[in-house]
Amino acid sequence: MTFQLSTDGRECLYEQIYEHIKREIKAGKLLSGEKLPSTRFLAEYLQVARSTVDYAYGQLLSEGYIESRPCKGYFVCPMEELLQLGDIDEAGESLFGDHTGGNAGSFLVDFSPYEIDMSGFPFSVWKKITKNILTFANSDLFAKGEAQGDYTLRCTISKYLHSSRGVNCRPEQIIVGAGNDYLLMLLEKILGRHVRIAMENPTYRRSYQIFRSFAYQITTVDMDESGMRSDKLEQADVSTAYVMPSHQFPTGTVMPIGRRMELLKWAAGGADRYLIEDDYDSEFRFRGKPIPALQASDRYGKVIYMGTFSKAIAPAIRISFMVLPDRLLEKYLKTCSFYSCTVSRIDQSILNEFVRDGYFERHLNKMRKLYRAKHELLLECLQPFRDRFIISGENAGLHLLLTAKGRAAERELVQAAASRQVRVYGLSESMVEEDSGSAAVLLGFGGLSQEKIREGTELLRQVW
Amino acid sequence: MTFQLSTDGRECLYEQIYEHIKREIKAGKLLSGEKLPSTRFLAEYLQVARSTVDYAYGQLLSEGYIESRPCKGYFVCPMEELLQLGDIDEAGESLFGDHTGGNAGSFLVDFSPYEIDMSGFPFSVWKKITKNILTFANSDLFAKGEAQGDYTLRCTISKYLHSSRGVNCRPEQIIVGAGNDYLLMLLEKILGRHVRIAMENPTYRRSYQIFRSFAYQITTVDMDESGMRSDKLEQADVSTAYVMPSHQFPTGTVMPIGRRMELLKWAAGGADRYLIEDDYDSEFRFRGKPIPALQASDRYGKVIYMGTFSKAIAPAIRISFMVLPDRLLEKYLKTCSFYSCTVSRIDQSILNEFVRDGYFERHLNKMRKLYRAKHELLLECLQPFRDRFIISGENAGLHLLLTAKGRAAERELVQAAASRQVRVYGLSESMVEEDSGSAAVLLGFGGLSQEKIREGTELLRQVW
Repeated sequence: MTFQLSTDGRECLYEQIYEHIKREIKAGKLLSGEKLPSTRFLAEYLQVARSTVDYAYGQLLSEGYIESRPCKGYFVCPMEELLQLGDIDEAGESLFGDHTGGNAGSFLVDFSPYEIDMSGFPFSVWKKITKNILTFANSDLFAKGEAQGDYTLRCTISKYLHSSRGVNCRPEQIIVGAGNDYLLMLLEKILGRHVRIAMENPTYRRSYQIFRSFAYQITTVDMDESGMRSDKLEQADVSTAYVMPSHQFPTGTVMPIGRRMELLKWAAGGADRYLIEDDYDSEFRFRGKPIPALQASDRYGKVIYMGTFSKAIAPAIRISFMVLPDRLLEKYLKTCSFYSCTVSRIDQSILNEFVRDGYFERHLNKMRKLYRAKHELLLECLQPFRDRFIISGENAGLHLLLTAKGRAAERELVQAAASRQVRVYGLSESMVEEDSGSAAVLLGFGGLSQEKIREGTELLRQVW
Repeated sequence: MTFQLSTDGRECLYEQIYEHIKREIKAGKLLSGEKLPSTRFLAEYLQVARSTVDYAYGQLLSEGYIESRPCKGYFVCPMEELLQLGDIDEAGESLFGDHTGGNAGSFLVDFSPYEIDMSGFPFSVWKKITKNILTFANSDLFAKGEAQGDYTLRCTISKYLHSSRGVNCRPEQIIVGAGNDYLLMLLEKILGRHVRIAMENPTYRRSYQIFRSFAYQITTVDMDESGMRSDKLEQADVSTAYVMPSHQFPTGTVMPIGRRMELLKWAAGGADRYLIEDDYDSEFRFRGKPIPALQASDRYGKVIYMGTFSKAIAPAIRISFMVLPDRLLEKYLKTCSFYSCTVSRIDQSILNEFVRDGYFERHLNKMRKLYRAKHELLLECLQPFRDRFIISGENAGLHLLLTAKGRAAERELVQAAASRQVRVYGLSESMVEEDSGSAAVLLGFGGLSQEKIREGTELLRQVW
């Protein structure tokens, strides 16, 4: 072995020895089974301390390049030759280059039904609470928390749900998780595989995608003006139904109490039947009192209630929750409670104070006012469209539905809008099955300023 | 209808009308199909403004208690009678009462291998960064981020992984998620169902539980002093192998380079074969340089690398990541990229600065020193045990393994310890299959103070 030890101190000696021998082995210059010089010999040869060589050999030993045979010395390990070692090239060009994702920004006005108004984010309150929590927090807060989420936060959520949504639940029934997508994944583990699920058509496409990525067998059940048809549900071979009774996406339908009772009756008819209630934007109702949750009428433990703070506070606040009926809670505790909670305890504490101390309620009132103004403006701007379109879903939520009265193709409406750099969303995007009905488009207003709403509708008026 | 309107102003008039009619319907006093008084009549009768009655009827309409028939008036909706409505009792006693979970606190000294030292948490730095981020953040930070995690954080992780673990990856290959449990759930969706997976025995029990909760078929593959035996792996009918090459849990085995090459060769032998490398505590190595990751030797895109910041920083920091080989990345982008990221963007930004600005490196150095001192103390305190036990796993990690030399039952060791209020962890807890081998226990030291280590080992000396 010939060494060139650099002694300028930039690289430590042991490391140079280690690297050199490793390189020789990788390059095939030191062969499997070959004996290495003794540490004493090499130390003298290189004029370094013996401990330096010991250290280098130790590292080579730990990584398995060499082995020590008692009383015989160090030998190069036998190793698989097929995969030649050697330094792998640094990744050059990016295989999947663009990470910005899509054609954002190419529209002048984007009537997205998924955006919310971020200007209303309660920045200073959030900052204040965060600061307080970090100041007075003890190290407990950084230790591992409960799998279902911190008990104090669950108490706060349970109280909030009771007063604002009529939901009846104990904190023990609540599971806090980082977003609905995650909670649905967890629910998959609780419900078991091979669930046969009923969905409305159209429905919330994201949930459809998620269920499809599971082993779920999805059946679409016809809806009428009250939502999912219970007679059709009875006929369908399903165990679970996914509904949004307070404000169906995208149609905006509010499920009346009669239909709710029918669905609950259906669920009560089978031990394994459940209703998943996605209460995604129940906070934003502009006329009358909030509609209570379906869970509020459930006396048989059949409703899995899901809610989120991402829509009402900010998408980056990844905190959602679900309320399990007791039978599923038992199953969760038996089979899934080892899954760690996905929300950091700091975030849980911030949210807890935010809700508990009334900031959330105040924030909601502010946002309701803000959205109501946009909502009314959009309705007003859409007046000239009323001879050609039926406008619906006008009581709640952050979008309206425009259905063409005459013969018009959805694609033409979307393309005509796009020709003026206005993005509208065809109802068929939310369709799970093809539907040959009339053409309809969604106009979301949550993320748009009043000027943009005026500009966008004016452009639409010119082309439609 | 007889009303008793309270006029003391505590409850608004419209709400009283609404509540009264709802109650009558629920109680069956107003029957399905029954006609309600006209709004004009009721307003006069109650001596309130007509708009008040309109508002109350509007709410009952939205909730589906009544319906409006054109030119005829308002009628009580027909509805399912089977499920009598009525107020549900508030949950009284808790069905699953105890939420504190388990017997924590009943031990004087708990040699848990899962705990870390929270006293080392870089509290002030974390607070400083958080404050800065909240001060200078724009509302973008609260908007929805990229599904894989923020690109800047992924760049930082990719650089860190390269320099500290030898991992070669582009930021595009990284997926950030709230904990390993979640990332394994996501991986299930990417790999597809019905994966046949090989695990060592003993192994990390939590991963075993998670794989079992999937539709995975788990095969245990024998291990020797180099880790999973590749000859046995070749014989097993599996597509994926789960390994911890840098520091196997719980044995502490470091997989030598030769064995790594054999595993990589096995993986290269089938298009659908992959190795899951769980690099859970690679940061805490007390002798020599860190052992590079298995991924660093992978030239065929066969290693799925998983790492976490929960172990090195704090369990409450729910940020883990996985590095996908290109073939799986393509699959992810096609089939799973609609799943939202589970980590809040604020937390991502804090972690990004923490790692990018060198605080993480400094924190790791501090923790290494802290753990090394505990590690050495524990080894020293265990000197008197060496005639009866073989001590292993002493190069890295936050626990040691004590294997009884003579005839001793693991249960007896654990119980004898418990009789002095000392908790030790039987190796069989990490066993996936029964093993009739010698008795061994794990002694973790991460979460214990030096005093507790002395006290605990002294108590063990008295009973073992």
